[in-house]
Amino acid sequence: MKKTKVLVLGAGFAGIEFCKRIDGRKFDVTLVDRQNHHLFQPLLYQVASSGLAVPEIAQPIRGILSGVKGLRILMDEVTAIDLKRRTVTCAKRNLDYDYLVIAVGAVTSYFGNDHWEAHAPGLKTVKDATRIRQSVLYAYEKAEATEDLAERQKLLTTVVVGAGPTGVELAGSFSELARHCLAKDFHEIEAKNSRVVLVEAADRVLAHMDPDLSQAALHQLEQLGVEVRLKTRVLDIRRNEIELEGETLQAGNIVWAAGVQAHPLTSTLGVELDRGGRIPTLPDLSLEGHPEVFALGDIVSLVDTNGVRVPGVSPAAIQMAQHLAKLLNRDKGKQDANRRDPFMYWDKGTMATVGRSRAVAQVARLKLKGFPAWLAWLFVHLVFLVGFRNKTTVLFHWVYSYLTYKKGARIIHAREDIAPELEKSD
Amino acid sequence: MKKTKVLVLGAGFAGIEFCKRIDGRKFDVTLVDRQNHHLFQPLLYQVASSGLAVPEIAQPIRGILSGVKGLRILMDEVTAIDLKRRTVTCAKRNLDYDYLVIAVGAVTSYFGNDHWEAHAPGLKTVKDATRIRQSVLYAYEKAEATEDLAERQKLLTTVVVGAGPTGVELAGSFSELARHCLAKDFHEIEAKNSRVVLVEAADRVLAHMDPDLSQAALHQLEQLGVEVRLKTRVLDIRRNEIELEGETLQAGNIVWAAGVQAHPLTSTLGVELDRGGRIPTLPDLSLEGHPEVFALGDIVSLVDTNGVRVPGVSPAAIQMAQHLAKLLNRDKGKQDANRRDPFMYWDKGTMATVGRSRAVAQVARLKLKGFPAWLAWLFVHLVFLVGFRNKTTVLFHWVYSYLTYKKGARIIHAREDIAPELEKSD
Repeated sequence: MKKTKVLVLGAGFAGIEFCKRIDGRKFDVTLVDRQNHHLFQPLLYQVASSGLAVPEIAQPIRGILSGVKGLRILMDEVTAIDLKRRTVTCAKRNLDYDYLVIAVGAVTSYFGNDHWEAHAPGLKTVKDATRIRQSVLYAYEKAEATEDLAERQKLLTTVVVGAGPTGVELAGSFSELARHCLAKDFHEIEAKNSRVVLVEAADRVLAHMDPDLSQAALHQLEQLGVEVRLKTRVLDIRRNEIELEGETLQAGNIVWAAGVQAHPLTSTLGVELDRGGRIPTLPDLSLEGHPEVFALGDIVSLVDTNGVRVPGVSPAAIQMAQHLAKLLNRDKGKQDANRRDPFMYWDKGTMATVGRSRAVAQVARLKLKGFPAWLAWLFVHLVFLVGFRNKTTVLFHWVYSYLTYKKGARIIHAREDIAPELEKSD
Repeated sequence: MKKTKVLVLGAGFAGIEFCKRIDGRKFDVTLVDRQNHHLFQPLLYQVASSGLAVPEIAQPIRGILSGVKGLRILMDEVTAIDLKRRTVTCAKRNLDYDYLVIAVGAVTSYFGNDHWEAHAPGLKTVKDATRIRQSVLYAYEKAEATEDLAERQKLLTTVVVGAGPTGVELAGSFSELARHCLAKDFHEIEAKNSRVVLVEAADRVLAHMDPDLSQAALHQLEQLGVEVRLKTRVLDIRRNEIELEGETLQAGNIVWAAGVQAHPLTSTLGVELDRGGRIPTLPDLSLEGHPEVFALGDIVSLVDTNGVRVPGVSPAAIQMAQHLAKLLNRDKGKQDANRRDPFMYWDKGTMATVGRSRAVAQVARLKLKGFPAWLAWLFVHLVFLVGFRNKTTVLFHWVYSYLTYKKGARIIHAREDIAPELEKSD
């Protein structure tokens, strides 16, 4: 008997979890990702701020899933999905499926101002993170060498747009890097001349959390020397310049952490999407009229049966993957979406770190601030970081960095090319 | 009183050691390097073979030298030296000096066949190493996906040219990566189909060591499955193809470890150089007719007063730097090269590792093979690796890798751009 073919697009939190859970005896599973590694996104900002090395938060997909039998893994870029013909077009091949699982994740959104990207990179990929890291370090090198004081001030100014978890974590760690680490590295630069400005359109940071915790995070940011501009919208971004309501800042580096949207692949589906390009799914996570196609993770737009809008966070992606794997493992062959169990999101809480010993966390009605929240944050991120080797190394770096204030990955290693020889022969 | 200006070019082993030793109270010292980090070259092959991450073998120059007073560090590229005018031209500025210390190191040499570089990269920089790593991993991804068996065999073949320490270490670690790690990652690929071929023109590997140890290393390589071709010259290298005497190999990756030459900067000096572009110095390491200019490290061509040709290895570079710093600290202002102490090289021994538990080492008349040599190699490389953080992390990775056979840095992280915004504003 020929096994039912399941095609999984994307090896993020949802794709990896699904492949671990789906029953390889019943299904013939293929996983496609354009990278060879799974990225632990929640710690990507630590690569950008010189705290961690890339291999510490990236794990080879094949390594993670080496124990899964009968799974085929392909490194390829998906370019289009044809729901009618049940085929997926990739850069190097076409694939067909009986069940399709779309879990390609989110990309940075500039809300229609795509020309800002060149001047204010987002933080979604390894390349983004190493580019930002090198750009910030290089700005300090240039600031050290110049005798033009205005130029130096510009180079030492870093602006982060958007005060969600990523923006807050970036701003906090840039400020720590500048004050505790780079100030010692450079002789001509004084710590007090480094500016980190965090810009947010809403009236508080971490707007998804309790107002009390937003207040605590704001206070923690200010303790670290971050200048927070609330209720401030971005009017324009030019090269090394950002125009805000009421103020224009010259900045060596501008980082965009203000928004994400679904991967553009969703636009090839021919279904109606929400404003962020996300796919509205039925309660079982399948697409309307396509009980054989599912979406997982932050490309999904869904209010679950408890009336909760499912947020674009990794626990939600993992829970969706677990739901779907269970459903397919039990429900093989049944194609009636209405008879399937609906997905229900379980909110385990939310947290954000601001810096050394500084964080906020919210678990149901429990609210934590400062050192206890920071310990909770460390613990949760270490537990979920993939791989014993990474957990151990990262824990060591954090302890070391806690004791010395040093960030060890402050390396500018220049342009890199991936296998140009091999690329050409495709 | 104005202090004497010392300009140091290059932050390799010699440049770093010199800056640590020179007396900052007597001299006004400037160090220029085109990178912001010092690279621990002896372990670079472990980045290429997915064992270590870049920040584990690279340390920020400013971090290493943060305790040195009055030292100015500039990130810039030196393009020419004018000995008559006593000026150095860099990409962004010109610098003058009272004493000049040239320590810019070596680059890969193709012995007049520079067109081979595109098809067979060398291993001298971080970029080289990450490019080779990604290219090898990507070849395996392509081999897994193809159904063309000849194409697959090609992709799984890696050729290393040159069986000096770097070539031997690369070949051994590629073979280990293929057999113990990638064979588990990939389902369609069997370990026995991976080929690593090591090509050497001489009649033995590690020709600089005792013949007995060359024989041991050859045996160790063969145990790891490396095919060693001795007395075999390279006739031509084309894309994914290498033509040897008597044989032409198709290979997904070809790595060149057959030779180095002095950095091309030496050609701007207008002095007579040796065949490898190295600078012949007087016994005190100064240039003939220029008692104010010195060369250190593997750009030096010198037979010391004991009649020993000083080799291009890191202990020699470090000893030269110590000699020169001592000489200048004592001898300030004296410009008579003949009255200065001559440099004498102290050969501490030589070692090379072939793989897990496999190495050879030679210290005076003592010869070590296998596990004892490997332990000695580990110990020496850990001790000299810069920084407590790196020592600890690398030790952990080695222990982990020893126990599990895994190489954790097998990440393809694609093209990277360094701060294009900032580059443009120069």
